[in-house]
Amino acid sequence: MQIQFNDVSIIKKSNIVYAGYCISHVIKLKNGDIKNLGVILPTVEPLIFETQMAERIEIVSGICRVQINEKPEIEIYYAGQSFYVPKKSQFSIISDEIIDYICHIGGT
Amino acid sequence: MQIQFNDVSIIKKSNIVYAGYCISHVIKLKNGDIKNLGVILPTVEPLIFETQMAERIEIVSGICRVQINEKPEIEIYYAGQSFYVPKKSQFSIISDEIIDYICHIGGT
Repeated sequence: MQIQFNDVSIIKKSNIVYAGYCISHVIKLKNGDIKNLGVILPTVEPLIFETQMAERIEIVSGICRVQINEKPEIEIYYAGQSFYVPKKSQFSIISDEIIDYICHIGGT
Repeated sequence: MQIQFNDVSIIKKSNIVYAGYCISHVIKLKNGDIKNLGVILPTVEPLIFETQMAERIEIVSGICRVQINEKPEIEIYYAGQSFYVPKKSQFSIISDEIIDYICHIGGT
């Protein structure tokens, strides 16, 4: 994993949900791809997100537990790993530590 | 104020202090300038920061109260405004709401 994005645009204002437990910035690549670069803070309850488009969530740092749609399994993801969420889906994510993540919109 | 940075690099891993109450990402401009793009969450007590180099803190959204070094005055800053902190200095910042900010390292 590269430690940085190069030659990108980034929106200055963040997107904040769950009272600041999830904070992200929109990044636009030269090829038109959109990413969200964000942080999730430790929570007691899982944070639930719904997708419009498919998303691939890449964990940059930290460890998290993820459940996708109605699947009974809770999977654990470490830094450098990622998980795919289909469009029009839902996933829950929880961690005991701070997570840095990239959301690859479209799932690329 | 432009709503976005263009043609920049951004470090994927965030810098987090005060248990997640201040989260920022390092941005590198083509001309070599370094900025920190960040968020400060509402706190009960002011957050205190020390500068090595001079910094100009630009408020992108939100309202905050700032005290610099030993000055008795607490100044209020709104979105679009900024304040200058000399090198080797200290400032405290507090807000009742979420603040998006840019820290212009070097004070430019």
